[in-house]
Amino acid sequence: MYVILVYDFGEKRVGKMLKLCRRYLNWIQNSVFEGEISEVRLKEMLMLAEKFMDKESDSIIMFKSYYQHEMDKMIIGKERSQLDNFL
Amino acid sequence: MYVILVYDFGEKRVGKMLKLCRRYLNWIQNSVFEGEISEVRLKEMLMLAEKFMDKESDSIIMFKSYYQHEMDKMIIGKERSQLDNFL
Repeated sequence: MYVILVYDFGEKRVGKMLKLCRRYLNWIQNSVFEGEISEVRLKEMLMLAEKFMDKESDSIIMFKSYYQHEMDKMIIGKERSQLDNFL
Repeated sequence: MYVILVYDFGEKRVGKMLKLCRRYLNWIQNSVFEGEISEVRLKEMLMLAEKFMDKESDSIIMFKSYYQHEMDKMIIGKERSQLDNFL
């Protein structure tokens, strides 16, 4: 499964979320990650995130697709990611 | 065409980018927008953004898909958008 994940976490928890996401997905810009991940691994990641997130103020938005090639990625301006895994 | 757009702009230009995106797409979280848009309208928007963006430091990442229903959206935590246009 291909996932685009965007989070918005409070200052105190944002570093923890960044670290967690890095273990499961590829960083592309600020609080934006993407990558191939299994349902099981995704559930595991979200379970860990829910342990420290403040649901009253933090948020995670995910876009899931079964076929990565359906999403055409385009970058304008500065390239933030150091990973060379672009489409 | 369905688009997810994420930008990362310097402080001086970020407000301008927010305003521009609001005219073309639906805001969902911080600097994340999505929506149905034609190729022509998207080009128009990007042309306007390129007029004021600093390509050395700002960035725009877009994910384009021809079928919105292929992307399954999931939100955890606080709902930021005031628009009721979720899947």
